[in-house]
Amino acid sequence: MNGFSLHSTLREDCHILGTWHDIWVLLHRDAHVRWFILVPETNLTEWHELPEETRQKLALLTQRLSSCLKTEQHCDKINLGLIGNMVPQLHMHVIGRWKSDPYWPGVVWGKSQSGKKYTEEQVNAFQESIKTYLEQ
Amino acid sequence: MNGFSLHSTLREDCHILGTWHDIWVLLHRDAHVRWFILVPETNLTEWHELPEETRQKLALLTQRLSSCLKTEQHCDKINLGLIGNMVPQLHMHVIGRWKSDPYWPGVVWGKSQSGKKYTEEQVNAFQESIKTYLEQ
Repeated sequence: MNGFSLHSTLREDCHILGTWHDIWVLLHRDAHVRWFILVPETNLTEWHELPEETRQKLALLTQRLSSCLKTEQHCDKINLGLIGNMVPQLHMHVIGRWKSDPYWPGVVWGKSQSGKKYTEEQVNAFQESIKTYLEQ
Repeated sequence: MNGFSLHSTLREDCHILGTWHDIWVLLHRDAHVRWFILVPETNLTEWHELPEETRQKLALLTQRLSSCLKTEQHCDKINLGLIGNMVPQLHMHVIGRWKSDPYWPGVVWGKSQSGKKYTEEQVNAFQESIKTYLEQ
């Protein structure tokens, strides 16, 4: 989308892994969990107001990333969320959780701590490992 | 689904408004916000593992209820979530939020307080008001 710009909070909180059919794929810097954030290029702020095509692309991407988290990262549960109370730019959370992660069984929102970060090598390896799932 | 039984926690926390194409429509008892919980009749626990048909029905129901919350309840923001860390039975949250509600701008999960309840008349009126949206 012409003139689309990623919200500054998302840019600060996340590594940018790439884009997939006009949806930005971000990885939250908090490495206690496996936390993707998907940002379609739109100015709309509510999921139900999105064009059907965008909703379908978001759904497909969510399915593929969820499969990846289960298979490659052995996550116990996938948490999905569209909230946007603090960052109005529409974004979808796809979070791989383990029963051993520090926030379990609570939600990550409002609790995420700094302290455990990815190395550059880990981000690159992660980016590589999701490629197969995104290119299906 | 034969043998489907609503999880006891959902039954305790919610008013049952009805079912729509094999999806149970619940209203959380916490009246500080407008909180629907949608429960498709399935034993699967992850959204990405659901049959496509069930995902589509959930999406359509979510769209209609979100529109209702915006139009009839004048909510400022819709929060959507599929979590399931505590209650494994697959359920989707569709929550109408106001900037004036006690949890704003945080999420409701893990914060919901008792204290503000619906009267039976309010539940009935609410059930009536969503009918038009569900029967579209």
